[in-house]
Amino acid sequence: MLSVGVNGYGTIGKRVADAVVAQPDMELVGVAKTRPNYEAGRAVKNGYPLYAAIEERAEKFDAADIDLAGLVEELVEEADVMVDATPSGIGAENKSLYEEHDTPALYQGGEDADLVDTSFNARANFADAAGADHVRVVSCNTTGLSRLVAPLEEEYGIEKVRATLVRRGGDPAQTDRGPINDILPNPRTIPSHHGPDVQTIFPDLAIDTLGLKVPATLMHTHSINVSLNGDATADEVRELLESQSRTFVIPEHLDIDGAGKLKEFALDAGRPRGDLWENCIWGESISVEGDDLYLFQAIHQESDVVPENVDAIRAVAETADADESIETTNDALGMGL
Amino acid sequence: MLSVGVNGYGTIGKRVADAVVAQPDMELVGVAKTRPNYEAGRAVKNGYPLYAAIEERAEKFDAADIDLAGLVEELVEEADVMVDATPSGIGAENKSLYEEHDTPALYQGGEDADLVDTSFNARANFADAAGADHVRVVSCNTTGLSRLVAPLEEEYGIEKVRATLVRRGGDPAQTDRGPINDILPNPRTIPSHHGPDVQTIFPDLAIDTLGLKVPATLMHTHSINVSLNGDATADEVRELLESQSRTFVIPEHLDIDGAGKLKEFALDAGRPRGDLWENCIWGESISVEGDDLYLFQAIHQESDVVPENVDAIRAVAETADADESIETTNDALGMGL
Amino acid sequence: MLSVGVNGYGTIGKRVADAVVAQPDMELVGVAKTRPNYEAGRAVKNGYPLYAAIEERAEKFDAADIDLAGLVEELVEEADVMVDATPSGIGAENKSLYEEHDTPALYQGGEDADLVDTSFNARANFADAAGADHVRVVSCNTTGLSRLVAPLEEEYGIEKVRATLVRRGGDPAQTDRGPINDILPNPRTIPSHHGPDVQTIFPDLAIDTLGLKVPATLMHTHSINVSLNGDATADEVRELLESQSRTFVIPEHLDIDGAGKLKEFALDAGRPRGDLWENCIWGESISVEGDDLYLFQAIHQESDVVPENVDAIRAVAETADADESIETTNDALGMGL
Amino acid sequence: MLSVGVNGYGTIGKRVADAVVAQPDMELVGVAKTRPNYEAGRAVKNGYPLYAAIEERAEKFDAADIDLAGLVEELVEEADVMVDATPSGIGAENKSLYEEHDTPALYQGGEDADLVDTSFNARANFADAAGADHVRVVSCNTTGLSRLVAPLEEEYGIEKVRATLVRRGGDPAQTDRGPINDILPNPRTIPSHHGPDVQTIFPDLAIDTLGLKVPATLMHTHSINVSLNGDATADEVRELLESQSRTFVIPEHLDIDGAGKLKEFALDAGRPRGDLWENCIWGESISVEGDDLYLFQAIHQESDVVPENVDAIRAVAETADADESIETTNDALGMGL
Ligand SMILES: NC(=O)c1ccc[n+]([C@@H]2O[C@H](COP(=O)([O-])OP(=O)(O)OC[C@H]3O[C@@H](n4cnc5c(N)ncnc54)[C@H](O)[C@@H]3O)[C@@H](O)[C@H]2O)c1
Ligand SMILES: NC(=O)c1ccc[n+]([C@@H]2O[C@H](COP(=O)([O-])OP(=O)(O)OC[C@H]3O[C@@H](n4cnc5c(N)ncnc54)[C@H](O)[C@@H]3O)[C@@H](O)[C@H]2O)c1
Ligand SMILES: NC(=O)c1ccc[n+]([C@@H]2O[C@H](COP(=O)([O-])OP(=O)(O)OC[C@H]3O[C@@H](n4cnc5c(N)ncnc54)[C@H](O)[C@@H]3O)[C@@H](O)[C@H]2O)c1
Ligand SMILES: NC(=O)c1ccc[n+]([C@@H]2O[C@H](COP(=O)([O-])OP(=O)(O)OC[C@H]3O[C@@H](n4cnc5c(N)ncnc54)[C@H](O)[C@@H]3O)[C@@H](O)[C@H]2O)c1
Repeated sequence: MLSVGVNGYGTIGKRVADAVVAQPDMELVGVAKTRPNYEAGRAVKNGYPLYAAIEERAEKFDAADIDLAGLVEELVEEADVMVDATPSGIGAENKSLYEEHDTPALYQGGEDADLVDTSFNARANFADAAGADHVRVVSCNTTGLSRLVAPLEEEYGIEKVRATLVRRGGDPAQTDRGPINDILPNPRTIPSHHGPDVQTIFPDLAIDTLGLKVPATLMHTHSINVSLNGDATADEVRELLESQSRTFVIPEHLDIDGAGKLKEFALDAGRPRGDLWENCIWGESISVEGDDLYLFQAIHQESDVVPENVDAIRAVAETADADESIETTNDALGMGL
Repeated sequence: MLSVGVNGYGTIGKRVADAVVAQPDMELVGVAKTRPNYEAGRAVKNGYPLYAAIEERAEKFDAADIDLAGLVEELVEEADVMVDATPSGIGAENKSLYEEHDTPALYQGGEDADLVDTSFNARANFADAAGADHVRVVSCNTTGLSRLVAPLEEEYGIEKVRATLVRRGGDPAQTDRGPINDILPNPRTIPSHHGPDVQTIFPDLAIDTLGLKVPATLMHTHSINVSLNGDATADEVRELLESQSRTFVIPEHLDIDGAGKLKEFALDAGRPRGDLWENCIWGESISVEGDDLYLFQAIHQESDVVPENVDAIRAVAETADADESIETTNDALGMGL
Repeated sequence: MLSVGVNGYGTIGKRVADAVVAQPDMELVGVAKTRPNYEAGRAVKNGYPLYAAIEERAEKFDAADIDLAGLVEELVEEADVMVDATPSGIGAENKSLYEEHDTPALYQGGEDADLVDTSFNARANFADAAGADHVRVVSCNTTGLSRLVAPLEEEYGIEKVRATLVRRGGDPAQTDRGPINDILPNPRTIPSHHGPDVQTIFPDLAIDTLGLKVPATLMHTHSINVSLNGDATADEVRELLESQSRTFVIPEHLDIDGAGKLKEFALDAGRPRGDLWENCIWGESISVEGDDLYLFQAIHQESDVVPENVDAIRAVAETADADESIETTNDALGMGL
Repeated sequence: MLSVGVNGYGTIGKRVADAVVAQPDMELVGVAKTRPNYEAGRAVKNGYPLYAAIEERAEKFDAADIDLAGLVEELVEEADVMVDATPSGIGAENKSLYEEHDTPALYQGGEDADLVDTSFNARANFADAAGADHVRVVSCNTTGLSRLVAPLEEEYGIEKVRATLVRRGGDPAQTDRGPINDILPNPRTIPSHHGPDVQTIFPDLAIDTLGLKVPATLMHTHSINVSLNGDATADEVRELLESQSRTFVIPEHLDIDGAGKLKEFALDAGRPRGDLWENCIWGESISVEGDDLYLFQAIHQESDVVPENVDAIRAVAETADADESIETTNDALGMGL
């Protein structure tokens, strides 16, 4: 059994914790949090040992009648692998903590690529993380792009990717995020940083990305163009994407027009939190015009990186190879819709 | 065992079907639907016998490879009680269908009050539905108001209720609903129809309601004023509301600022679809100024009527009294947060 | 001629500057700004002398090729009256600046009431500002409420006001403001601070206010209840409100359902920036139930305080009484729709 | 003087009417409307002769105390050119009306391309409309794309255009339009109809377009890729676009991040209704990677076709060539920011 600790118990951290608990070969030794909000209460109800991430604030948990198992240092000491899911930039501050205890650590997409030994996507470069001390699971958007690029690159070769990322303004509970009624080129310069981020996984890929931000909270939506090297038909590409375990090609007859119905579909299916771990690709959008492949995909920012974190734990601990790990993760979570 | 059929398998119908399945004393004999969309596929995966609501469209289910158990008439024949959860106005068209088969039927809040023998709220007037043939479970907003009025009326007596209902523009998957960037007095005339609707439950209550519509999908929010007859303190009212089984007084320390965090709280708690069956009342908002009680409550339009439908089934079938039914329903669903 | 300077040239400041220019008895001696954004460029194109509000940042204007007339101190020295329209809290920091130059100053609603000698609403308490050194023009919401309270109090006497303020999340250009998809009780405690703010104008008024924030940018909307002392009919109240110069009773036949159509109406009418200086009250919403008056009004947060600032300048300078000033302001701006 | 009539006095029609009035060589002989809403009242206040578009509803104008000048047939008879700005599909129904009176007519982008002799964009194919009886001014999005394609095609030659159109869900006053909180691939199939629409102006252009719809009302935003035939630098392209009269390259120092600030900029500049007749291209977004040009542009759906309609009137009437007409239109309106 791998002993896993999670530092930072918010949107990503709580999902990773639940996913770890679901694995046959892992044990959650605890989670660390800074403040006693509704998520802290739930961690305790779930029976997850709760550690204070910041010593000075530990008494706030007392005040809220929430029992602590200790301080984050103890959690790091106990864990075989730590998953850091703190806000962007805090992971970097925590690096020395993990190093002091000689505990390998995973970081999230909000951290810089050069903080770590390697960036990670299970489908694309699992093996690169073998035995690494510091690994970054790439962001939700980069994960979504990497899952698409990997099979297309293998099957056809890619001349160039051009992707417009229409990003959600904030997560559903982030009430201080805008915009309320606008479409923001974001960043206003082109190409955006997302392309170089994909290149941390595919160093030789030609990719230009453009980012925007809109008043929606449920999912990002990608408008994708891939100029392929080889000949392809829409049907072949569709079959290829249907054959991948973490891309869900939405069948036309479901009559799903956007993220609202996708999330409802996931909730109806009993998915925890209505999470959509897969890239959700509209079947009818997959088109080939000459060498140009086009498609739309929706990316659930809150959860697509969750199975990737689980796989990265095994990669770092060298307890499984890519295929074994992905299969175990998928089975344990209930991947597939 | 009560045999229950559900006609209209959308937002409300699918939730009522699941809730019926969860009851120890009920059996779901089937659901009827008009079109083979994602919800139809899910019904079949759930093992719910699926009936065609409209004979002419039955072949569309064939085309989508979805097996039908028959036509809605057969479902009505088989059921002890039918729950009609079709869109506003369709319930009225279906009334004769239920009468032909002598099957008592429940309707939803979108139907007119005079379609039925009695309107229904479990906490307030369960007994009125005993043995009735046609019962209307009042709308989400009226249910939310009734649950508040009942204990206050009993405990203090009510001089007058004044409520401003800030309503969500559409449900999360209703992508054709607006407004996008506006606050609409809706209806523009005052008082709105919601007050008279509450009076179908409390005929003698003085209540004036004002309605608005805003660009949000998650929950309605009520700004409530109740002029009480007796003396009350905020603490007493809070205790009273905390003692009710279907009103959830949100504790301050959860740090929940709106419907986004409320839904996340429910999803984290493992609630199916993140449903909030209870009125969600902000604890810190409960205030008394002279005779005037004020508070804010959020109402989950998609689910607060679900336990009420379950209770109404027993009320109509006369298999339990109010307290027994409410307790059974609550236990089976997992009411309480 | 009154020499007027404006410090803080944003949403409010630029409108006040334009309004001052439109007055027959005032001269705009300049505006002060901190940064050379699109508003700064426009000030210069308008021929408004532009002063640097912060000395250290003056060179940024050079870099953007925008000519400065000097530093804010010079502007204060030159002005008979300063209008401070800087962000909340900055006005307080600027107070000593105005005192040093012995220049009376107006502040906006974002400042605390106890910063000033008197809070101000032209219709309600013009005379209180006579000769004052520091006057606060109350916020957009308080201005909207005061214009309603004044005639009702005079005509009928008011027992109590209960108002639910459904507030816009941010102004149209404030892209960093949320919420995106939520309805937030804000503040979560009741009553909100708006009631006490109205009492800075009507010290003896009984008023309880409740605030919410929603994802809309165009206008606030107030759901109003006034318990009147005397007998009233809806028609009488309507006539009373139609007779006021800064309340616009929206006629039914215009078929205006919200702020979007109201703003379009104002833009079609040629109003600068589509500004609605008046309270916009839906005619069909004005209702009387027993002693309770109800109505909906929309308040244009960006502009309703503009005529009030203009009047406050004359009040402070003692160059006109309330009626004269209001008439001059209204004529110069083109009040009335 | 050219006598111009406008049939359909809504978003587009009222703007075209005002623009016609502003032209030195045109006279507005009247506008036709179906219902007496706020726009009808304004037409009369503007002194625009108002005709009933539908005879049976003429009395409704009486009821609203709005004087009619006659029926639409009389207007068509009187006009040298009619501009039809009725909702999509109604223009086609009106075609025979214009033919009966031998009055050449312009239609809007909501009509099918094969309804007319030629589709029209002033910059790209003015001459094609010479003497035509039925001309379609292409839609807001197609107009925006054509203005970009024309100079790039002339200067460099275009290998292929790939454009993702992030479209506003509805206009600001269209309160019944959604989505509220979603990003909708729309249409879900690729390529969208926008590409072929651009080909009604540039028949040989290789162009693939992808459409989405989001909860915003102010402007569309285009994420553009153009594979150029010749060598280009970002600076050259920028200069080229700055030299066009109907493309506004937004300077970085204005610090404009989206449509909200763009509209505020236009309102501050005194533009009627805050209209942005120009393509608004973010300067810092103009980038060249190899042969690929990228940029973001915002398109004001309510107004960018207005100057095109004015030019099309002259084109049809053969009273000016392209350059003369564009210059006259621009001068009369005050093009340029
Ligand atoms: N939410 C998304 O859409 C998303 C998607 C993919 C990746 N990410 C990345 O995941 C990381 C976490 O993001 P999130 O959305 O879960 O954030 P979040 O704010 O939801 O959660 C972060 C949690 O960390 C806690 N925290 C803050 N400071 C801490 C500290 N010093 N020590 C321990 N805990 C601390 C916070 O209290 C909070 O519970 C970021 O790098 C982010 O870029 C986020
Ligand atoms: N959604 C809410 O917020 C809400 C809340 C409380 C009450 N209600 C009421 O519940 C009722 C149902 O609303 P909903 O939101 O679930 O609607 P919905 O549109 O989500 O679901 C209605 C279902 O009925 C089906 N249907 C349509 N015509 C039918 C027919 N002739 N026979 C059988 N099925 C048919 C539709 O295909 C759909 O699956 C309405 O009366 C509504 O007013 C809705
Ligand atoms: N926008 C509204 O809805 C609204 C309505 C009524 C009252 N108010 C009040 O009006 C005041 C101004 O609000 P606003 O919306 O116009 O803000 P704003 O941010 O639009 O404008 C403020 C301006 O002041 C400038 N500024 C910042 N610091 C400064 C300084 N030290 N010296 C001089 N200028 C400085 C900013 O650059 C900006 O141009 C606040 O008190 C606010 O509460 C705002
Ligand atoms: N609004 C946009 O964003 C936009 C942009 C470019 C092109 N267009 C196109 O312009 C055309 C008009 O669109 P709009 O947005 O101005 O619509 P609109 O609904 O704002 O205005 C249409 C007007 O036509 C009137 N009308 C309806 N039926 C009529 C009839 N039979 N005879 C005369 N008038 C009638 C309506 O009352 C309304 O005043 C459509 O083809 C549309 O596709 C619209």
